[in-house]
Amino acid sequence: MSILIKDSKIVTQDEKRRILHADVYIEDGRIIEIGKISTEADFKIKNRIVMPGLINMHTHVPMVLLRGYGDDLLLEEWLQTKIWPIEAKLKEWHIAAGTKLGLLEMVATGTTTCNDMYFFEDVIASTAEKFGMRCYAGFSLIDFDTPEMKREKLVPCCEEFLKKWSGSELITPVIAPHSTYACSPETLQKARELQEKYNAFVHIHCSETRSEVYDVLKKYGRRPPAQIAAHGLLNEKTMLAHCGWITKEEVKEIARAGAAVVHNPVSNMKLATGGYAPLPELFEANAVVTLGTDGAASNNKLDMFETMKFAALIHKHHRWDATIVKAQQVLDMATINAAKFLGLNAGSIEEGKIADVITLDARAVNLIPSHNIVSHIVYAASGFNVKDVIINGKVLLHDGNFVGVDYDAIIDEAEKAKEDLVGE
Amino acid sequence: MSILIKDSKIVTQDEKRRILHADVYIEDGRIIEIGKISTEADFKIKNRIVMPGLINMHTHVPMVLLRGYGDDLLLEEWLQTKIWPIEAKLKEWHIAAGTKLGLLEMVATGTTTCNDMYFFEDVIASTAEKFGMRCYAGFSLIDFDTPEMKREKLVPCCEEFLKKWSGSELITPVIAPHSTYACSPETLQKARELQEKYNAFVHIHCSETRSEVYDVLKKYGRRPPAQIAAHGLLNEKTMLAHCGWITKEEVKEIARAGAAVVHNPVSNMKLATGGYAPLPELFEANAVVTLGTDGAASNNKLDMFETMKFAALIHKHHRWDATIVKAQQVLDMATINAAKFLGLNAGSIEEGKIADVITLDARAVNLIPSHNIVSHIVYAASGFNVKDVIINGKVLLHDGNFVGVDYDAIIDEAEKAKEDLVGE
Repeated sequence: MSILIKDSKIVTQDEKRRILHADVYIEDGRIIEIGKISTEADFKIKNRIVMPGLINMHTHVPMVLLRGYGDDLLLEEWLQTKIWPIEAKLKEWHIAAGTKLGLLEMVATGTTTCNDMYFFEDVIASTAEKFGMRCYAGFSLIDFDTPEMKREKLVPCCEEFLKKWSGSELITPVIAPHSTYACSPETLQKARELQEKYNAFVHIHCSETRSEVYDVLKKYGRRPPAQIAAHGLLNEKTMLAHCGWITKEEVKEIARAGAAVVHNPVSNMKLATGGYAPLPELFEANAVVTLGTDGAASNNKLDMFETMKFAALIHKHHRWDATIVKAQQVLDMATINAAKFLGLNAGSIEEGKIADVITLDARAVNLIPSHNIVSHIVYAASGFNVKDVIINGKVLLHDGNFVGVDYDAIIDEAEKAKEDLVGE
Repeated sequence: MSILIKDSKIVTQDEKRRILHADVYIEDGRIIEIGKISTEADFKIKNRIVMPGLINMHTHVPMVLLRGYGDDLLLEEWLQTKIWPIEAKLKEWHIAAGTKLGLLEMVATGTTTCNDMYFFEDVIASTAEKFGMRCYAGFSLIDFDTPEMKREKLVPCCEEFLKKWSGSELITPVIAPHSTYACSPETLQKARELQEKYNAFVHIHCSETRSEVYDVLKKYGRRPPAQIAAHGLLNEKTMLAHCGWITKEEVKEIARAGAAVVHNPVSNMKLATGGYAPLPELFEANAVVTLGTDGAASNNKLDMFETMKFAALIHKHHRWDATIVKAQQVLDMATINAAKFLGLNAGSIEEGKIADVITLDARAVNLIPSHNIVSHIVYAASGFNVKDVIINGKVLLHDGNFVGVDYDAIIDEAEKAKEDLVGE
């Protein structure tokens, strides 16, 4: 498949963060050329804002099925009366339906890579691969029976999962011990053994809530980052979701270890956890800082554009300082920072890079006038300004229309799954 | 013009906050019937989420021209190096161009009434009337020369403005003394005299920043709400924008006076003012609480859906309590609360009401599955889910396309104005 994008403004996200006015030619999954180009192509696109696809570094894709099911509740009540009872009923077909809906929403709003963590991860991985989404698929390890299997089967099945998806182009298998409060030291140890054996990424919730921090401290004598570190898991292949209640010393330890922090401002605010990743201190320590939506049950969408705006504004607001987190830093979190951490040859628009590329409507009413594109992307854009989405060189959205995706079937299937789970 | 909306979910916002599955028939500017309806109509719409149009209670419409021009700056630097130098250059045609762009964005994202305050308000009012937007147009009174006229002409011109627009169907003239820090006691007194003489609304900035509060206290011996009250302006026809730094006692005084508070969470967060309207206390005191975007220079858009989400989340986050501000309360702020305060027979979908109505795409990927429509509107929707917009019974947006509006001409004119003001 070849794609020619003509006469566009290109937010390269290269080392110099250049903005170019040029054409982009894509073929066989790669960005072949940037410049003045006249050639034929299977897909022609023009007059757009072109930028790297967004990388959502923490989500639970199938939880879109629980979007709006139980809001405005205290966290414990929300989990106990709403989320867990429904999760207990989950079957494979619900997961497939929810995954498709979540992928549809992510592509519609410009996400080209997601870092997922849930049950039935093999179903999620298969669905994402078929859909054409780049997915880091986190197989959950947790100390209770999941809707999918008994707890004792989790570690061996995780190992099978790592083997099965090794070498896949779009899917990267990830080990996902849930958290230090839901995983015993033994489970963390198993996760570490798998990480070493397969050189795999680990994705874990870390210090999301204040009570979690103190529960873990009370039980194990260590706060969550130290508990993760004690089992060898604080390293350059581990992604720490939230870090909402980390200390200044923990910021430095995480930075030194090279682990990635995933900031989820919308979810943290909606669940009223109080804390959120301290970006200024993390930047200061040169930590790897990335962005996520979390699941749609606590967001309630998967729009990374919205998440970028919340990320910048929550910090300005709290520190009474509009300069403390800038648009360019936030865009970096959602693109090149994540790509570099993942060792993914994407996250910027440069010749030779993998073609994970999106375009925005340059004449969208909310992106006019054209003062500063990076500002517009972070503060003014909506995911629904996205017009074209290219993942691994393949066009999934063209001029606002899905290519090779049966939109109505996905919507209907999701509604059917919802009815089965919670009634009409 | 007649409009039939078939087979839709109706978020009525009536006294009982009912959600109906029904048809809506609109004719001659009014909602005529809600029920099962079979009749012909000029416009047919079906399978939508139907809700009252949103009411943006604090904005400066033409400032869309400054969207993205100077972000991530300290407030003083932003005003002195970016906003004020450009504002000094403003001419009528820039204002007309900016107003059209702002109206286009507001209609595209579901706002049917705006409460504006700026310079050249007569141009804004004329432009809004011609466009078909319902606009409360605030003529600014301020103690310096404006780009439009010398300061001594402001009060007499404001009076002319009040007379000129009296009796207009879409435009309501409003007196807009800028603030207690930019208006002397004499100016506030003049505003009050005009308010009494014409029974007009007053729109004023109040306690937006901490330094404003202490500056006014130092200069006049009173904090801004008391200064407003001392000149007779704290009453049931006054709209107080921001109230980000008000005390618990001021909350009660504002509630007793019946003045409306306009909460602008996105602007407050982006400008890092630290404070924001304390909704829980305002609700407790039964104050009139409404919502606004502020100008796009400090937002950077005019999407009231985004503003609703920020309004709910900022309070949950700060109070560590997900129950403190609920979706229904926020939707009320953006619809029926504002309409009631304005004495506008709209803000809900009921027979006999003025037809200020919007629809959302019920099959939008981010509004699936259909657990709870009010939750979806506040937490999951985007302004770009809006498909139809009806103001005063007239269709301005139909199935996502503008009716009788030259989109490209407005975009081009806004770009031209921007180039004239700041260069390419």
